[in-house]
Amino acid sequence: MKRIDLNCDMGEDFGVYRNSLDSELMKYITSANIACGFHAGDAATIRRTVKLALANGVAIGAHPGLPDLSGFGRRAMAITPEEAYEMTVYQLGAVQAFAQSEGGGLAHVKPHGALYNMAAKDRRLADAIAEAVYRVNPGLLLFGLAGSALIHAGHAIGLRTVNEVFADRAYESDGTLAPRGSDGAVIADAALAAEQAIGMVKFGEVRTRQRGSIPVQADTVCVHGDTPGALQQVRQLREALAAEGIAVRKAGE
Amino acid sequence: MKRIDLNCDMGEDFGVYRNSLDSELMKYITSANIACGFHAGDAATIRRTVKLALANGVAIGAHPGLPDLSGFGRRAMAITPEEAYEMTVYQLGAVQAFAQSEGGGLAHVKPHGALYNMAAKDRRLADAIAEAVYRVNPGLLLFGLAGSALIHAGHAIGLRTVNEVFADRAYESDGTLAPRGSDGAVIADAALAAEQAIGMVKFGEVRTRQRGSIPVQADTVCVHGDTPGALQQVRQLREALAAEGIAVRKAGE
Amino acid sequence: MKRIDLNCDMGEDFGVYRNSLDSELMKYITSANIACGFHAGDAATIRRTVKLALANGVAIGAHPGLPDLSGFGRRAMAITPEEAYEMTVYQLGAVQAFAQSEGGGLAHVKPHGALYNMAAKDRRLADAIAEAVYRVNPGLLLFGLAGSALIHAGHAIGLRTVNEVFADRAYESDGTLAPRGSDGAVIADAALAAEQAIGMVKFGEVRTRQRGSIPVQADTVCVHGDTPGALQQVRQLREALAAEGIAVRKAGE
Amino acid sequence: MKRIDLNCDMGEDFGVYRNSLDSELMKYITSANIACGFHAGDAATIRRTVKLALANGVAIGAHPGLPDLSGFGRRAMAITPEEAYEMTVYQLGAVQAFAQSEGGGLAHVKPHGALYNMAAKDRRLADAIAEAVYRVNPGLLLFGLAGSALIHAGHAIGLRTVNEVFADRAYESDGTLAPRGSDGAVIADAALAAEQAIGMVKFGEVRTRQRGSIPVQADTVCVHGDTPGALQQVRQLREALAAEGIAVRKAGE
Repeated sequence: MKRIDLNCDMGEDFGVYRNSLDSELMKYITSANIACGFHAGDAATIRRTVKLALANGVAIGAHPGLPDLSGFGRRAMAITPEEAYEMTVYQLGAVQAFAQSEGGGLAHVKPHGALYNMAAKDRRLADAIAEAVYRVNPGLLLFGLAGSALIHAGHAIGLRTVNEVFADRAYESDGTLAPRGSDGAVIADAALAAEQAIGMVKFGEVRTRQRGSIPVQADTVCVHGDTPGALQQVRQLREALAAEGIAVRKAGE
Repeated sequence: MKRIDLNCDMGEDFGVYRNSLDSELMKYITSANIACGFHAGDAATIRRTVKLALANGVAIGAHPGLPDLSGFGRRAMAITPEEAYEMTVYQLGAVQAFAQSEGGGLAHVKPHGALYNMAAKDRRLADAIAEAVYRVNPGLLLFGLAGSALIHAGHAIGLRTVNEVFADRAYESDGTLAPRGSDGAVIADAALAAEQAIGMVKFGEVRTRQRGSIPVQADTVCVHGDTPGALQQVRQLREALAAEGIAVRKAGE
Repeated sequence: MKRIDLNCDMGEDFGVYRNSLDSELMKYITSANIACGFHAGDAATIRRTVKLALANGVAIGAHPGLPDLSGFGRRAMAITPEEAYEMTVYQLGAVQAFAQSEGGGLAHVKPHGALYNMAAKDRRLADAIAEAVYRVNPGLLLFGLAGSALIHAGHAIGLRTVNEVFADRAYESDGTLAPRGSDGAVIADAALAAEQAIGMVKFGEVRTRQRGSIPVQADTVCVHGDTPGALQQVRQLREALAAEGIAVRKAGE
Repeated sequence: MKRIDLNCDMGEDFGVYRNSLDSELMKYITSANIACGFHAGDAATIRRTVKLALANGVAIGAHPGLPDLSGFGRRAMAITPEEAYEMTVYQLGAVQAFAQSEGGGLAHVKPHGALYNMAAKDRRLADAIAEAVYRVNPGLLLFGLAGSALIHAGHAIGLRTVNEVFADRAYESDGTLAPRGSDGAVIADAALAAEQAIGMVKFGEVRTRQRGSIPVQADTVCVHGDTPGALQQVRQLREALAAEGIAVRKAGE
């Protein structure tokens, strides 16, 4: 039986600011990537989100980002591999401690935003992040863009890796995501997005913007939580997966 | 045989800023309280300091502070017990992760600056901090001002506590430290400071500014690292302790 | 003819976070207090809010707060008068520059949150803030709690001061606001709140929680912008003022 | 008579951290570029440095940087022109307010670190920074790398520009500075550095790392303040300039 993990970025509130549908979305996913306070999130938010994940049986992940609260971690920064290593250890430590204090455990790590994109392409950054995860706990799962440098780095150091695919983003023929601004980059129609997800899970393939088809390893699908239609989309995706007989299960179990 | 722990606040660099004699002082102490990034310190500094502690066989502690980098965590803030709990979990998690990633372990927690002072008096804050430490790891030691609310809170929840005394600070008759500005609050003479430390360790007593004497439990002596004469002082203290046959040993061992 | 200024705290977004009804509320007020980046707000938000104020003919004010983004500047901090002076100059400078760059000018300063409350009671902090405002530009207006230490400090240094009153908060017999938690502290009914505002403007009096009546100087009424009913409340207040023939005019004009 | 301005980055302390020789160096320079709190500096430091500049008759400049305190503004970030505009207005506003409050005035703006380097090459960022400066005060001087995009942007909008040259850095044949890591990039010998400065001022030429010679407009020489030998170097430079009959004068006077 085919199976897939559904992950979502969560815990992105900060201070008095509320930015999320977390309590609703948590019902539909299997892995939560929790912001760690660098690009978003704070200690209170991490605690609240960890409790929410535990209450819903969702796997707890750390979602480390660049130290750029005002830019939400979306602006590339010229950091060194050492800095990537250090900011990863620090941030996953914070989420790990809340997982411990609430009686759970940290399951995975997925970098955020610009750090995710940089680690997908730059093998030295990817190696540094993988090493940080491995040295804190070699049993952690490393989430990264399917087939990217981060996945390769995780394999190389001995981590179990989880290939992430996107239901609602167009792929280029080299396996990267089409840049957001480009033509047809975002698949707005939820039915088409669900269809793309199912194709990736069932057949290990995805159509590209260049109208070809490429192989893709789909271990987890990213569910976006910051759009108005997020809840409707994830419900539709789960229905489509159920109709195809694809089980939704935590990665690594 | 009498014994005592010597602890010092460390890892208080930030970014390009250097503020410490850590590599020198590390040779003379048994417990390092490492700043966690809220009042001072950052991921690179924590890593460097954890490695230094491990290389010197010094116990690794987290030194959580108020979120006040520009004030070095020295300004009292009206935080709630929930906020104290959350900032403690977050910060000790960061140091714990670096201890793990360098092959060591977190041994203790000692709050910093205004958080230390507030937790010495305010039992609700003290309980929140003790609970944070306990829930992350009940095997951790909790350092606090000897006989303070924080020590009582630690006992109450089931943590092993470590009573901290000060060699170079004058005591009031109620067991609190004389406020820094007040007359005779700081014992500048290293010989007199060593003498006060030895009195506390050997006899469990300290003379007060009111010229009486009060009982005091001395499990660890705080070594200041941020004064020009810090190195000279700690050397003199160690010689005085050795001359009295008092062993310098990590707390809790 | 009686007249009153209506002021509102604005520009409290941060990064990707949106927290405000500013564009709607701006139509009903005469003075905007713009967050400066310490407790909330950032450079982009200040710019956007300054432009909005200019487009609506609303006076531009700086709304300096404590350096506590995660606590929204609501937590009292033990700052020195020097620190209050410095953080005031810095923050009003930022808003002043955006006023200049958009072709307008800075009109007033009103401290935020805990800084506002501290400056209402602590004359040394109040003097420091007043001095900061005066030394940057003696033509600026200083907004403070009616009759508070901040108003006295402003007078003493030679600033024009603007006494702020609250339509929806209960007063104690000493002229302070009833603490938020206390019984009847908040007047939830918009009609009663409007009635209290009109009484203060027309008769210079307000009833107290102790059921007496005290004199109060009302130069500006604070309009809250962070509640769901904020728009309805300010509309109702403006209607009630119009019905009483009270003009709504910028302070100091 | 030939003349030159000597500028130095200053006010780079933060909180308890001290990072500078400012009070000594201030005696030898004519323009101080004061950190604004984003990459370094804080309100107390800006005030102290502005007073020091005024006491020494040194021109006060704002030295805006990227919002990256932990990286000292040295890490390139993918900011938009709008963000560059906004962070420039904000930061120069802060320094301007301290200049006003101390009875002086803001004279110039020079971006810091990565922002300086990015603005030297990226005309859109350069235009945004120049526009920010111009819109706050068209009388301000804009300092930038000699002949760079920032200088061109300043000219284009109508600002007076000041071409900055480096005594102790090797030049490439295209007029850019040799990257720090590259062979011979830094001229460690103070006499050779002074010689390079004099060549640029007297003859408008500088030798390149490729052993040719290129024209360069030298309006101000950058004096580094963060090296142990900084004081010795600036003294030697001033002596060499005096020996050549080159006057040291504030830019723009």
